[in-house]
Amino acid sequence: VTSENKTKNLAVIAGDGIGPEVVAEGIKVLQAVAPGAFELTDYDLGAERWKRTGEVLPDSVLDELRQSDGILFGAVGAAPGDKTMPSGILERGLILKIRFAFDHYVNLRPSRLFPGIPTPLADSVIAGKEIDFVVVREGTEGLYVGNGGVVRAGTPAEIATEVSINTAYGVERVVRDAFARASRRRNKITLVHKHNVLVNAGGLWRRIFESVAREYPDVATDYLHVDAATIFLATDPARFDVIVTDNLFGDIITDLAGAVTGGIGLAASGNINPEGRYPSMFEPVHGSAPDIAGKAIADPTATILSVSLLLDHLGLADESARIEKAVLADIAHRSAGTSRSTSEIGDAIASAL
Amino acid sequence: VTSENKTKNLAVIAGDGIGPEVVAEGIKVLQAVAPGAFELTDYDLGAERWKRTGEVLPDSVLDELRQSDGILFGAVGAAPGDKTMPSGILERGLILKIRFAFDHYVNLRPSRLFPGIPTPLADSVIAGKEIDFVVVREGTEGLYVGNGGVVRAGTPAEIATEVSINTAYGVERVVRDAFARASRRRNKITLVHKHNVLVNAGGLWRRIFESVAREYPDVATDYLHVDAATIFLATDPARFDVIVTDNLFGDIITDLAGAVTGGIGLAASGNINPEGRYPSMFEPVHGSAPDIAGKAIADPTATILSVSLLLDHLGLADESARIEKAVLADIAHRSAGTSRSTSEIGDAIASAL
Ligand SMILES: CC(C)[C@H](C(=O)O)[C@@H](O)C(=O)O
Ligand SMILES: CC(C)[C@H](C(=O)O)[C@@H](O)C(=O)O
Repeated sequence: VTSENKTKNLAVIAGDGIGPEVVAEGIKVLQAVAPGAFELTDYDLGAERWKRTGEVLPDSVLDELRQSDGILFGAVGAAPGDKTMPSGILERGLILKIRFAFDHYVNLRPSRLFPGIPTPLADSVIAGKEIDFVVVREGTEGLYVGNGGVVRAGTPAEIATEVSINTAYGVERVVRDAFARASRRRNKITLVHKHNVLVNAGGLWRRIFESVAREYPDVATDYLHVDAATIFLATDPARFDVIVTDNLFGDIITDLAGAVTGGIGLAASGNINPEGRYPSMFEPVHGSAPDIAGKAIADPTATILSVSLLLDHLGLADESARIEKAVLADIAHRSAGTSRSTSEIGDAIASAL
Repeated sequence: VTSENKTKNLAVIAGDGIGPEVVAEGIKVLQAVAPGAFELTDYDLGAERWKRTGEVLPDSVLDELRQSDGILFGAVGAAPGDKTMPSGILERGLILKIRFAFDHYVNLRPSRLFPGIPTPLADSVIAGKEIDFVVVREGTEGLYVGNGGVVRAGTPAEIATEVSINTAYGVERVVRDAFARASRRRNKITLVHKHNVLVNAGGLWRRIFESVAREYPDVATDYLHVDAATIFLATDPARFDVIVTDNLFGDIITDLAGAVTGGIGLAASGNINPEGRYPSMFEPVHGSAPDIAGKAIADPTATILSVSLLLDHLGLADESARIEKAVLADIAHRSAGTSRSTSEIGDAIASAL
């Protein structure tokens, strides 16, 4: 019995809005590809729970999550007009709390333009090109640390600060992870930052990037300011293989990357603690989309691809690849233009396995 | 004799790379549309000057610039591979120094998809749509203040910080400017921030935005997180009229906005001190592009449109509009696909005036 054959504990945080709808399909596919391999525990967290109980993420729940082998996360968030829910409560109290508590320093976001998928980019940009890159976004530092404050709030003399904290420790480990990925892919890596303005943080990123690069003579390196990176994502996304960047820049460019490669309905992500000291968390990049919740029209593909990333992380590489293949085949059919419900898409992918 | 008829002093900072090439055409057009209206003073600043003299922007030059009625800026920067020039020297010592010294709190960046201009976006995104919006980027606060530092530089224990400073004073004045613009345009304004993560700065921006909005009941308001904003810039740019945002988000989304509306060869900008206490500075959004410098192939259109913004700011609204019209007419011809030199484009626009 290898460790891969032991039943694994998967914590499931379906969340709000379309979260539960897409997560149901992710689990359907998981159980089709690896029947009996996972024991699931549902956690009721998100806007609904907060409204009912005032709780975001009790310590006892965090302790339970810590015992799991992995976390599948849907999406959380109240409706946009809902003013009862202060901004940031769920983001900082739940998603970011888990990313930081479980040291998810590799926020992995693959982008691939699958054949047949509509994209907002012109044919001239994509024709004959293979668009297949991955953003390695740092997940535990930068402007996401929650450092900063407000003085004289609500007065004409208010001052609000946000502090971006970057350490050699934090930057080096994620840069190393990104170089290792590049060397397993097409040997090309691009650092995205803004070191001409953010000279302190940018200098640190740059020096570490250049020093790790010397250990990977076969990996071609490139640098782009974040503003220029958005231009290339729109005009020549095929130029990228691995992008490594900080937390906020990674947040911004991966939404754009998702948009140009067929929409965030397809964008999967992993919040990874590579050493496995803590459980990693896998989630679609999209949000809870309250406007389409309950209509059974949400695309579960991003969640299903997140399950594929989860399996790969847990050493079930075959199962992971099989899901990806099934998704690819399913997507190829979509070009026909028929529109299916959330569960029809999940069924189709699960039954192809 | 109205004040518009007095000769105005224009400071010209052509800079490096393609800077002098495109600025020459901007001045050609300026002199064609308003002969004798401007007295020009050239300032030799940029990478070349720094290499020769070690000087970036001597105080005496800043004092002279302060006496001008306006500044036309080309682009500065050494070649990308040039390691003799530390990152940030010119950006922080020259461009940002001027923006901050002259209180350019409105960084105005119009984006318009002119008919006939190629765009990386698919027909499905742009067909039948009018894409015409303006980003009002705050220019004197946020992460651009140069606050932060490095501890234990170059060691494995290095810590680098960047502090974003935001004040009610600074946010309110730029938000007011943006609302006033929206009320003169299509009455729609979008705040772009990331208040679910940057709760301090985001809260300040949001409260001020909502309070100024109450004074403009006819202006429809919208809010987007910066990551979502990049998605819409790629998938539905026609939805925007005025966008108001902070310094860094504005930097990022205006490059993307330029890319989707025909490339930053067309993107003009104004660094404006609306009260006229200090001279305002007008510049193309693009950089010095050393790779194409000296080949006479740089597109001077962004600089020529920046001259149009300059004239408008100085009260020469007719002349400003005439340049815009001439550029539009010229662009309409470009669809023919003939490629012209930098000066041929300048000549064509100047002679159409
Ligand atoms: C919801 C929010 C905290 C989150 C982020 O900013 O990281 C989201 O935008 C993402 O990209 O996962
Ligand atoms: C050169 C740099 C300092 C500048 C900025 O970041 O503002 C540029 O990117 C711009 O957009 O004008």
